[in-house]
Amino acid sequence: MTLPIQPEDVRAAAERIRPLARRTPVFTSAGFDAEAGVRAFFKCENLQRGGAFKIRGAANLVLSQTPEALARGVVAYSSGNHAQATAIAARHVGVPATIVMPEDAPRSKMEATRARGARIVTYNRFTESREAIAHEILKETGATLVPPFDHPLIMAGQGTAALELLSDSGPLDALITPVGGGGLLSGCATIARAMNPSIRIFGAEPERANDTYLSMQSGGRVAVHPDTIADGLRAPKPGELTFPVIRALAESILLVSEDEIRAAVKFLLLRLKILVEPSGAVPAAAVLFRKLPPGIRSAGIVLSGGNVDFEELAQY
Amino acid sequence: MTLPIQPEDVRAAAERIRPLARRTPVFTSAGFDAEAGVRAFFKCENLQRGGAFKIRGAANLVLSQTPEALARGVVAYSSGNHAQATAIAARHVGVPATIVMPEDAPRSKMEATRARGARIVTYNRFTESREAIAHEILKETGATLVPPFDHPLIMAGQGTAALELLSDSGPLDALITPVGGGGLLSGCATIARAMNPSIRIFGAEPERANDTYLSMQSGGRVAVHPDTIADGLRAPKPGELTFPVIRALAESILLVSEDEIRAAVKFLLLRLKILVEPSGAVPAAAVLFRKLPPGIRSAGIVLSGGNVDFEELAQY
Repeated sequence: MTLPIQPEDVRAAAERIRPLARRTPVFTSAGFDAEAGVRAFFKCENLQRGGAFKIRGAANLVLSQTPEALARGVVAYSSGNHAQATAIAARHVGVPATIVMPEDAPRSKMEATRARGARIVTYNRFTESREAIAHEILKETGATLVPPFDHPLIMAGQGTAALELLSDSGPLDALITPVGGGGLLSGCATIARAMNPSIRIFGAEPERANDTYLSMQSGGRVAVHPDTIADGLRAPKPGELTFPVIRALAESILLVSEDEIRAAVKFLLLRLKILVEPSGAVPAAAVLFRKLPPGIRSAGIVLSGGNVDFEELAQY
Repeated sequence: MTLPIQPEDVRAAAERIRPLARRTPVFTSAGFDAEAGVRAFFKCENLQRGGAFKIRGAANLVLSQTPEALARGVVAYSSGNHAQATAIAARHVGVPATIVMPEDAPRSKMEATRARGARIVTYNRFTESREAIAHEILKETGATLVPPFDHPLIMAGQGTAALELLSDSGPLDALITPVGGGGLLSGCATIARAMNPSIRIFGAEPERANDTYLSMQSGGRVAVHPDTIADGLRAPKPGELTFPVIRALAESILLVSEDEIRAAVKFLLLRLKILVEPSGAVPAAAVLFRKLPPGIRSAGIVLSGGNVDFEELAQY
């Protein structure tokens, strides 16, 4: 079977997104390694422009469009980080962005998206369909949709995080990323396997948003009702395009509890001195609480974002 | 007048401390620059080994001693970060460290120091003298004192932060560091002036620990009773060796309120995604709240440390 993206797509994305995405640093921590029993290399996408890896995919898609298509604007639906990323990419090319956002999205993400000049349309994520609302806007305006994950250009863009991480770290035994819709994991897995055929690839999900875990067990895409503090991982099921890549390349999905996520956020904050949002801390939680199978001595961990409300943080 | 340290001393320290101190990154933030009206370059000493710049001075002093002197151990008195630094340096050379610490020092700092293998002796900072306690231990053991700031090797070691910052940033209009006893500012000022004779140098202090500010006004060392959340800046007066350097090279001391310090900690956390302790955020607060004189377009800011209790943070 031919997978929807190839390593060359990730390499092309890396060139394309250079004007928009930051090359984020890779941190190590002797304290984390001692607790986890693994030498960890953290790709700090919390320090990325817009506070998350999402700019990589959004920039790759937007910068691949013709000026004519872009002139009618861009539309995205997102719980937050993808919204900001789309707004940043739209402003960069000088076109209007409309973002369809759940009305209970973190306030910090909503404000940051508005500050980037985007128009926000809210919806109730329990009773309304964001896809339906977005498609109505698309029909009215002729704008370009920037999907959150299930598109080859988005997947390839997100994969650039692993391309940079593995270039900086050198060969690793394993790579772990969070899984929401699977854009980040599918893109990262594609390039990681090409750079290092023996690398073991894992996704990490909250137990309370375990759609990809269940899908891997059953072999087909399973939907769940996510209920987790990791608001960026609340996609109810894996993507049509992302899932085959994950199934082909990832060894398994590691699950973590809500308490383990909170503990990882706290560890990263107090010991590494960096703010990582709950979604972004899920793979670190999996490694810290030793969910990896035996035999892995070094691991690349994508800390996918850092956008947290202060009030939320204070509750920990 | 010959000042107690020269730029060569800072350059020599940079070589000496290489095995122990990390070359920390320099961050920029378009969001901070927009708020502050200054292009800021943040030297992230919160990401330093031990969570603060203090390892630079402690390593420089310890690595300058003979093995014979070191064999009898090292002693330090410190509210926290210098304690951890001394413990790290002592462990590196394989000798015992005894730390004299106020009994109300932040729990995180006390635990971290103990975790580095040091013995801790506590005292009441309102009724007892840490210097007296330390000197008693020195007399008993013949150990080497690692003073917190008032020593040429400590001052020169701390200056390596500015050496790295200015090497990475290129020429800047100004440099700002926090001032406790003045070790960091005196060392940084010495090398900064040598690298860039026209750079304007500032210290930053809490209004409630304004001993160096008052000393600059009066021309002589003035003591105060510090009462600030910036626990690393509670030295009651500038050092005998540090003050002449500060007086000769710094333009002025910028003062910030407790609320401005809290706001800066929050800004650095939520926008730059890094955890900086109150003491370390004082210069950022000064720039954010526009305490710099007019005409400064670019500034190097030393974020001196990142050791905060979670409970303390939650109170903001």
